[in-house]
Amino acid sequence: MDATYRPTKRTTPTRYRERAHYDRPTVHRILDEALICHVGYVSDHGPVVLPTTHARHGETLYLHGSTGSGPMLAAKPAGLPICVTATLLDGLVLARSAMHHSLNYRSVVVLGTARLVVNRDEKLRAFDALLDHIRPGRAADCRMPNARELAATAVLALDLVEVSAKVRHGGPVDDPEDGLLPHWAGVVPLTLSAGTPEPADDLDPATQLPAYLR
Amino acid sequence: MDATYRPTKRTTPTRYRERAHYDRPTVHRILDEALICHVGYVSDHGPVVLPTTHARHGETLYLHGSTGSGPMLAAKPAGLPICVTATLLDGLVLARSAMHHSLNYRSVVVLGTARLVVNRDEKLRAFDALLDHIRPGRAADCRMPNARELAATAVLALDLVEVSAKVRHGGPVDDPEDGLLPHWAGVVPLTLSAGTPEPADDLDPATQLPAYLR
Repeated sequence: MDATYRPTKRTTPTRYRERAHYDRPTVHRILDEALICHVGYVSDHGPVVLPTTHARHGETLYLHGSTGSGPMLAAKPAGLPICVTATLLDGLVLARSAMHHSLNYRSVVVLGTARLVVNRDEKLRAFDALLDHIRPGRAADCRMPNARELAATAVLALDLVEVSAKVRHGGPVDDPEDGLLPHWAGVVPLTLSAGTPEPADDLDPATQLPAYLR
Repeated sequence: MDATYRPTKRTTPTRYRERAHYDRPTVHRILDEALICHVGYVSDHGPVVLPTTHARHGETLYLHGSTGSGPMLAAKPAGLPICVTATLLDGLVLARSAMHHSLNYRSVVVLGTARLVVNRDEKLRAFDALLDHIRPGRAADCRMPNARELAATAVLALDLVEVSAKVRHGGPVDDPEDGLLPHWAGVVPLTLSAGTPEPADDLDPATQLPAYLR
């Protein structure tokens, strides 16, 4: 397998080409760190973008939803052309000039035709990946879906073939002639952090917080 | 003006209807807190979803980009059907059963045809809104775009007409028969927080951190 995804016309940016990355480790890290993605598809009435959870298993991205939801219905029988975008925010970039304000971010765009997963083993594997994506170890520490629940849930698989990452990091880049302007310039770092776990109201107080949540 | 957006077929969810909200304050708060959105449109080759910054001014949402970028080119002359989705993550929801795992989140979906802003005053107003969206006060504390920069930047406006919010909060909701399972259940709160501002390498050390960044 190539170490990088092959750029296509659709995954080659027209601007800021130095921000584009195609190596698998960079793409995988972003997809694995992002807790949600935004999936876009074309409905009967135009483009739709929905937030949803995802999980990567090797070179396949899994999404799931109710069998009655729009994208799941649209995906049968021939698959559904989708665009999955996951974005991590790392900082506000304040430049002296309005034009050079930006964000530090890492994002991945995956394009392709998603297929409905019909194989039961693959579907269970996708569930495992989705649970472990929340916190590694969770799949082994909950009640797995029963037959009724499995039947009510659809899973989409999208192979990582047409993929690109974009990364912006570092400080503002002002035009040289703006360097002496009196405005503050720099970066305000942003971090998504997890707070103290809050037990469910009806949780048996004897239940220990699992190691993967500490 | 009505206090709520009027639900349409496209903004009425098929599931979890109790999570849908149409009141303007809820929608406005989510759009204003979200630092980025994901905008979807239909390119010649299918759906595309891109992360970008946005700003709300009254009942209009502004997006911007290079005049040469895909959505901006596609928006002339007749406007561009888009879907703008902004999502805030509030927590991981761990249930005893795999099926009831979820996220606490607040999201807004805006559907409509975006128009290219051609009026210079409106374009400048959009820039102000985009800068103040980063931090209120920033628009008045940087060099505004000159004629060349204005010409190189396109602004899209999308009126807030077909709009819905979705909000999930609170603890996990397990099936009653799962209540006695031994798995930990609850919420891990998530917060996007701003760290200490980092001055640009070439910033005059005498430059004070502005009040809006403290």
